Amino acid sequence: MDRALELARAAAEQGEVPVGAVVYVTQTGNVIGESANSRDGEGNPAGHAEFSAIVDAARARKDWRLNDCTLVVTLEPCAMCAGLIVNARVGRVVFGARDPKAGFVGSLGNLVDDCRLNHRVCAVAGVREEECAGLLKAFFAGLRTRRRTAS
Amino acid sequence: MDRALELARAAAEQGEVPVGAVVYVTQTGNVIGESANSRDGEGNPAGHAEFSAIVDAARARKDWRLNDCTLVVTLEPCAMCAGLIVNARVGRVVFGARDPKAGFVGSLGNLVDDCRLNHRVCAVAGVREEECAGLLKAFFAGLRTRRRTAS
Repeated sequence: MDRALELARAAAEQGEVPVGAVVYVTQTGNVIGESANSRDGEGNPAGHAEFSAIVDAARARKDWRLNDCTLVVTLEPCAMCAGLIVNARVGRVVFGARDPKAGFVGSLGNLVDDCRLNHRVCAVAGVREEECAGLLKAFFAGLRTRRRTAS
Repeated sequence: MDRALELARAAAEQGEVPVGAVVYVTQTGNVIGESANSRDGEGNPAGHAEFSAIVDAARARKDWRLNDCTLVVTLEPCAMCAGLIVNARVGRVVFGARDPKAGFVGSLGNLVDDCRLNHRVCAVAGVREEECAGLLKAFFAGLRTRRRTAS
């Protein structure tokens, strides 16, 4: 989570929502994918941190199956990212802040533990939650202040 | 749907699951993104046809918002793709075959019409359903025959 938080802080400095993610091989700890949020800079609706980290990891492997890997991300994944976690057969998910507005790993639903789908994932929620949520709160508070100052 | 079916047929010839997708500007009909399924060839767990078509459309626009666009896809989108449809604010979705095992635009759930999320999409299901489903059935039947012959 240290590295994921570092990536999230770097995203905030670029004006992106501060979310960071890392994919590593569960047994060795070897990182094979990492990313920060990049939606606005790249104009990419799929530019969520965990999404890019998983795609990078699969590319590095030349295989879309990541059963032996763990995803660590500072914010609860949305439906799109939870769907990718299932599609990529990610073995384990660890996340920080819960997302009551869009999270689909426990908040609005749990797509990674749906018995109707062909893969289910063990998820650990709330790891260093305050730090992860704090970054987001500070970012959006700053955004509101800048908007007020500009208007 | 003609073009989406054409893309799906081309995917089958490459050994990919035959799904095709097109994104066009609803009012003008101008196509700004299109793709076939490419998961296995590229080792990309996000290589679903409609996913790539939406990302391409956003890139072409240099904007992740596609409110004025329609997505046409031969198969009902999965959770990942339905999540992207919401994240990219796609205006309208038209699809062919229903997917009772993984579809999240009516079959297992409906992520594009969830009042808790910040965008809801009008979806039209079952357009040229038999043709779209027929392509998939023929592809998987061929796969099973080849596997039996090889074993």
